Amino acid sequence: MSRLVLATHNAHKVEELRRILGDAGLPVELVGMDSFPDVPDTPETGVTFAENALLKAHAVAAATGLPAVADDSGLCVDVLGGAPGVFSARWSGRHGDDAANLDLLLAQVSDIADDRRGAHFACVAALALPGGAERVVEGRMTGVLVRERRGTNGFGYDPVFVPDGEERTTAEMEPEEKDAISHRGRAFRGLVPHIAELLG
Amino acid sequence: MSRLVLATHNAHKVEELRRILGDAGLPVELVGMDSFPDVPDTPETGVTFAENALLKAHAVAAATGLPAVADDSGLCVDVLGGAPGVFSARWSGRHGDDAANLDLLLAQVSDIADDRRGAHFACVAALALPGGAERVVEGRMTGVLVRERRGTNGFGYDPVFVPDGEERTTAEMEPEEKDAISHRGRAFRGLVPHIAELLG
Repeated sequence: MSRLVLATHNAHKVEELRRILGDAGLPVELVGMDSFPDVPDTPETGVTFAENALLKAHAVAAATGLPAVADDSGLCVDVLGGAPGVFSARWSGRHGDDAANLDLLLAQVSDIADDRRGAHFACVAALALPGGAERVVEGRMTGVLVRERRGTNGFGYDPVFVPDGEERTTAEMEPEEKDAISHRGRAFRGLVPHIAELLG
Repeated sequence: MSRLVLATHNAHKVEELRRILGDAGLPVELVGMDSFPDVPDTPETGVTFAENALLKAHAVAAATGLPAVADDSGLCVDVLGGAPGVFSARWSGRHGDDAANLDLLLAQVSDIADDRRGAHFACVAALALPGGAERVVEGRMTGVLVRERRGTNGFGYDPVFVPDGEERTTAEMEPEEKDAISHRGRAFRGLVPHIAELLG
């Protein structure tokens, strides 16, 4: 059975991709970065999701000697020309401060009318082999930004994002419901044929 | 002599356009909004510079019965997909707080390498006649963002913007030097033939 490493310490992400690989019937053993405690995190110095995902995937493939999948994602707001984008986790200037990032975004678009508050979550998943081969897939979840937080599931901008066709924010949806339509789920599922091709 | 109103209370802007009209030899008397103290400011509810400039120009033309020029401008950062853009003056969520807006932008792009810090100031100038005719011109000044404030002239993001071909920030340049290459100067000069045509 081929081994594949997902460049994350997030157990939920590992489980999500593992389930997708299993549903696709791929004979692949997926491990996360907890199996490689000596490999440092890759700095996300890129200016696009694809650049960051590829940087991470190639770095982890080189460090582990295994095929590696990495993803980068963020929220893209229409009236902001796609920002915060790759800056989603540091939008307020403070990396990982979800509350500050969300407060800032709400304040920035507070004057924007309801019919212009379109946005999408984007996720780019990259697959890299130690030999250098690579594949990239983007997944999106489109919707609108609401004005007040609702819900406590998820993280980041989930409390103010309502996907198309939904009334609830992604923070009000069950994790499994969100995974079924999420940008990351779509990107991971899009990567399955490439994993089958390159690891088959 | 035709009268033309510039939709601003900023005396420096009025003087700048007046000089440009004079240099072009246009027989136009330019007045600012200080001549119309009862006309309220137009809310900038648009999501593009052109939309805001046209909103203001048409509102002022309707309120004064005179041809009106209005402009909207902002800083567009390459790696932010053109943001802050129309949100430049309220980037931090606090309208007009130049220091907070600048601090936030510097923090957001602090990880971005020197060769990827391209940006431009954009200005869209709109001319509107009471009868509804309109013209729109965009001017740009391209350059890069530096990491620390330098200089005390100008306003907004001037202390961290170095125009192409310059070593100084626009806050280190004399106002006349900046006007000669600025986005607003370019937009205003681009509007001159349209003013000549519609007011001639």
